Amino acid sequence: MVTTIEPEDVDPADRIEELLSGNNVEAAAELLADLHPADQADLYDRLDDAETLEEIAERLPRVELPRVLDLTKKDIAADALRMLPPAEAARALAQMKTAQEITPLLIHPDESAGGLMTPAFVALHKDMTVGEAMTLLRARKPLAEEAYYLYVLDARNRLEGVVNLRQLIVAERDVRIEDVMTRDVVSVRPDTDQEEAANLLQHYRLRALPVVDKNGVLSGIITADDIIDVIAEEATEDMYRMAGLPGDESIFAPVRVSAQRRIPWLMINLGTAFMAGGMVLIFEGTIAKAAGLAVFMPIIAGQGGNAGIQTITIVVRSLALGEIEPRDANRILYKEIMLGVIRGVLFGLIVGIAAYIWKGEWGWGVVVGTAMLLNMLVAGLLGTLIPLGMKAFRLDPAIASGVFLTTFTDMLGFLFLLGLATLLIDQLT
Amino acid sequence: MVTTIEPEDVDPADRIEELLSGNNVEAAAELLADLHPADQADLYDRLDDAETLEEIAERLPRVELPRVLDLTKKDIAADALRMLPPAEAARALAQMKTAQEITPLLIHPDESAGGLMTPAFVALHKDMTVGEAMTLLRARKPLAEEAYYLYVLDARNRLEGVVNLRQLIVAERDVRIEDVMTRDVVSVRPDTDQEEAANLLQHYRLRALPVVDKNGVLSGIITADDIIDVIAEEATEDMYRMAGLPGDESIFAPVRVSAQRRIPWLMINLGTAFMAGGMVLIFEGTIAKAAGLAVFMPIIAGQGGNAGIQTITIVVRSLALGEIEPRDANRILYKEIMLGVIRGVLFGLIVGIAAYIWKGEWGWGVVVGTAMLLNMLVAGLLGTLIPLGMKAFRLDPAIASGVFLTTFTDMLGFLFLLGLATLLIDQLT
Repeated sequence: MVTTIEPEDVDPADRIEELLSGNNVEAAAELLADLHPADQADLYDRLDDAETLEEIAERLPRVELPRVLDLTKKDIAADALRMLPPAEAARALAQMKTAQEITPLLIHPDESAGGLMTPAFVALHKDMTVGEAMTLLRARKPLAEEAYYLYVLDARNRLEGVVNLRQLIVAERDVRIEDVMTRDVVSVRPDTDQEEAANLLQHYRLRALPVVDKNGVLSGIITADDIIDVIAEEATEDMYRMAGLPGDESIFAPVRVSAQRRIPWLMINLGTAFMAGGMVLIFEGTIAKAAGLAVFMPIIAGQGGNAGIQTITIVVRSLALGEIEPRDANRILYKEIMLGVIRGVLFGLIVGIAAYIWKGEWGWGVVVGTAMLLNMLVAGLLGTLIPLGMKAFRLDPAIASGVFLTTFTDMLGFLFLLGLATLLIDQLT
Repeated sequence: MVTTIEPEDVDPADRIEELLSGNNVEAAAELLADLHPADQADLYDRLDDAETLEEIAERLPRVELPRVLDLTKKDIAADALRMLPPAEAARALAQMKTAQEITPLLIHPDESAGGLMTPAFVALHKDMTVGEAMTLLRARKPLAEEAYYLYVLDARNRLEGVVNLRQLIVAERDVRIEDVMTRDVVSVRPDTDQEEAANLLQHYRLRALPVVDKNGVLSGIITADDIIDVIAEEATEDMYRMAGLPGDESIFAPVRVSAQRRIPWLMINLGTAFMAGGMVLIFEGTIAKAAGLAVFMPIIAGQGGNAGIQTITIVVRSLALGEIEPRDANRILYKEIMLGVIRGVLFGLIVGIAAYIWKGEWGWGVVVGTAMLLNMLVAGLLGTLIPLGMKAFRLDPAIASGVFLTTFTDMLGFLFLLGLATLLIDQLT
């Protein structure tokens, strides 16, 4: 049977969720049993809530659980195992093909190459022949994800080279592995960040990446399917963090959970909004004399915020993709300052002329135009310096960088506009 | 030689760029020739500018060009080929391993499965034995990326099943392919969106995805390394679009190019900022009477904008990952309205009480608190409706959705605050 997924296909997981929310457990379990295990696992990912996950695990036939957990995202599978009664968890883990990948996660929940690798790889010796290697493979019957690259180790388990299945099949049976293997192997250390490992695998178009300790000993491998998850998850995490959301927020989380996740950042944002309000408060007297300034407040602040968000987004993403490093700061800063000047002169002239035409006083043009020019310069500078500075201090450049940036562009925008207006107040009234 | 990439490794491409910018072409060419082809290709990606790319292509030894283009991102490689003199381009294309993947790109530059697939796959017949299949592979010597899955076709080239290399090696040589192959093959149509193909390959943890036409005939395959690029590129594109940047903006683009790419959206944003300013203008008289309102303007607008950005980010990302569809609108809307009520009551009380304490008048507390409550509700509603609405109309939900959202939260925030203040002006002065 060939399953062709057409653009309009209906997701059966939706129907199961409906049945479950209507407490129609039996019908749901029946449908669930018919699903492709990957779709079953997807259901787990979507029901990213401790209670629901536990309920489903209990309803699932016992023999199915290890298969479903094998296909679930590993962090979710580890969570599910932690929630099961210990005896049940141990039994499920023992039957899982991915047990060796899940176990280190239960120990190291971090985002390093060591936390991502599986110790299940096929090792060869360079003096073996191709025929011997194939006989070894037939005997070992390795799993799909560990079998594409075969690693050539010396007597001390140090990595000497790599052979892939295609090379093995294409070669003559009596050729020695040494003569087939590739010696130039790209590898990572166990403490390499998973994002960096992902960038390397993508860059060199590999299907697996060996993890080698400081003595050159092969500790494990990271496979492409795990890297695909990492790439998607890291991108989601960066997007969410820039918007002031925790990286693990889910659209399917219950209202209570989402409220707990989202409100803390909004509380911090309220603090920064009060700072921007405080800046306006300093100049309350000026606004009382020239209320028209309030019209330009959102224009100066909003335009600065948006220009800065453009810059910060491109810097954060380029850092995440490993395209730039903090030491590229000078070059990027130079470019963004030049862009700031161009944008500043352009938009400063537009709003300055608009203000002059509206009020018929040159003072309005000067105050509004200069405030826009200065805020555009600040936006480019801060959009570059905030993420590069966070990276230099080994913080995630994505964390709420948008919130910090708009706080500054709001406060400084108001300072420029209302401060200049206070100096030139005689020209405005 | 084992190349271990350590966290602090230096990127040789940087040195080459320095040499090139200093016009030290010979030293750069020498260094370039020593680079791993993937690093050479990376240099192309970074120099995402027509002129520079053409210059480098001319400097590179002719025999190296096809190898470098094989490793360059396919869209960039296609661009490079378009820029070369036609005879030179044809000669390079003929020597490229990825020629079959690049050629359709030159014809279909779209983001569909058909534009992403390669027609280079290995086909078997179900009546062959495992031994015969292995002999065929030895004779064909397929490339790495086309060799992991072998596709079983009938006499009319319709897809009947799939066998992977591991299954082939592990099986006895006289077993028939029919008895080894998997019949349940997940496939896509040529017009399936590349983002959907990426989600499927990731979901089912595949290394390649067959593309089947409406008669069931296998047209080509999409390999995991291409999908990894798609996943990273689509995430970048969504992030950039949400920030009002074109999807192809690059931090390495020259100032002139970046200015041309970024200013159009800022111009649109200036238009929306003028709309927000216009809303304030309507109430200029009220502000002249109670200048303290200007202090709360950035607080109400900013808090609404940030709450809405949280919602819109999670909706846009979940749509991109295929986790939700426009028909999930009711459920998501219900949740975001509930969150809006919680946030609205919480932050409405905080700012309402703060305003009351500051001014000592209940009118201030009512005006400021109610405006915050209403703007929080609007933020949740619009954060959900804008991206789901764009998706329903088959537009990319990411395109500048942040700009649209903050325009509404600014305008409506000012309307609520200043409109209520106008109604209750006697209580404020």
